[in-house]
Amino acid sequence: MEARNNLLKMKDQLIFGIRPVIEAIKAGKEFEKVFVQTDLQGENSKELMALLKSNGIRFVRVPYQKLNKFTRKNHQGVVCLMALISYSSIEDILPFVYEQGASPLLLLLDGITDVRNFGAIVRTAECAGVHAVVVPEKGGAQINSDAMKTSAGALNTVPICKTASMVSAIKYLQESGLQVISCTEKGASPIKSFDYKLPTAIVLGSEDVGVSRECMDASDGLGAIPMAGTIGSLNVSVAGGMVLYEAVCQRR
Amino acid sequence: MEARNNLLKMKDQLIFGIRPVIEAIKAGKEFEKVFVQTDLQGENSKELMALLKSNGIRFVRVPYQKLNKFTRKNHQGVVCLMALISYSSIEDILPFVYEQGASPLLLLLDGITDVRNFGAIVRTAECAGVHAVVVPEKGGAQINSDAMKTSAGALNTVPICKTASMVSAIKYLQESGLQVISCTEKGASPIKSFDYKLPTAIVLGSEDVGVSRECMDASDGLGAIPMAGTIGSLNVSVAGGMVLYEAVCQRR
Repeated sequence: MEARNNLLKMKDQLIFGIRPVIEAIKAGKEFEKVFVQTDLQGENSKELMALLKSNGIRFVRVPYQKLNKFTRKNHQGVVCLMALISYSSIEDILPFVYEQGASPLLLLLDGITDVRNFGAIVRTAECAGVHAVVVPEKGGAQINSDAMKTSAGALNTVPICKTASMVSAIKYLQESGLQVISCTEKGASPIKSFDYKLPTAIVLGSEDVGVSRECMDASDGLGAIPMAGTIGSLNVSVAGGMVLYEAVCQRR
Repeated sequence: MEARNNLLKMKDQLIFGIRPVIEAIKAGKEFEKVFVQTDLQGENSKELMALLKSNGIRFVRVPYQKLNKFTRKNHQGVVCLMALISYSSIEDILPFVYEQGASPLLLLLDGITDVRNFGAIVRTAECAGVHAVVVPEKGGAQINSDAMKTSAGALNTVPICKTASMVSAIKYLQESGLQVISCTEKGASPIKSFDYKLPTAIVLGSEDVGVSRECMDASDGLGAIPMAGTIGSLNVSVAGGMVLYEAVCQRR
């Protein structure tokens, strides 16, 4: 039932049919997801595929039957979910932050898939003065109407940047003068022990496995949230709130 | 569709029919909600009503049609939602905490209705070593399977206490030696400025209007979370995480 609900909610974001999608690409529209039929054929389809590739638009090959689940109308083998926001690039944002004389504070979401957690984190990020939130191109939470709602509008104001590789993003940020702190239960130091007045990027991990090994290895520090009790594991949007609270307190 | 989903999820919690409900009361079972048909008649129903009253069980009068929405079976004018947890009483818990030589840390939820927020808050409370969570008898989040799930099991370990009046609960806690701090955007002092090593109860308010005027007036202090950005409003489970983080850090 939930899957059906999600499909219903997507309706407003859908465009389909080869010509409409080609026109959308030419108009510079942004896509959340692009699904192309596995064995798509025909003259128009060649133009479509060439455009997808030349614009660096990531797409997924799926069987015809899967496309039918999105719409019963004639989709001609291509269905797109339009992006509800405009994505930004880290390379554009960092110089802008430095120019303003501010010390950058970024948030990296390493595989957070729950749209409500994602929305809540972006809402908190806005309240903490975070300059940008970095998400993976693949495997992150879909930015749909639920995410927009849970963010309380913050998804319209906080720049969201996609990256093909979280580790590359971490390295780029380090080269740009930021310290990168991963939040993890396995952290050796309490999150309080870092100096967030410095240019900083904070990494939050996925709901099930936390920050990936590769991201932890690439980070400058691992921070743990102090715990009492026995569960020893917080909701990721709550954990994110705690570390951002620490950063905001230090930055006052 | 969401309402129907919720009804489906309630199925496991339902008991109905006058005799089964009478037996459940006699067996000392706890109820989340009790619905009785507006014009319930008959000999058995008198026994039921007398038992509800003598056991101080709160119930709601509803039309026959509303009861039909819970079940199509013969409910005989009474439908109950069984409680998924055993409730505790503040009067039992406080002496126990003091006996352990601990400084009480309690959380009061003033009108938080979203079950997922509620579950996340109880999860955080467990991780922060909160000794009990106080909720209103009427108007709080229903403790259903979604709340249980979001709490990650914490609803089975953190004592939950119901109170007929949040203001009376605040006064009782103050008489028992606790300071009561309400979290509010209108708070005069940053939440950091309080001493959480002292016996403390923290009040979190509802998603829409925050902590009620009466609870704020009854509190010893009002604490605000420092904000950058423009939205200026956090998800209540995130805000609760921040103040509990502050408390845990101070108590180390």
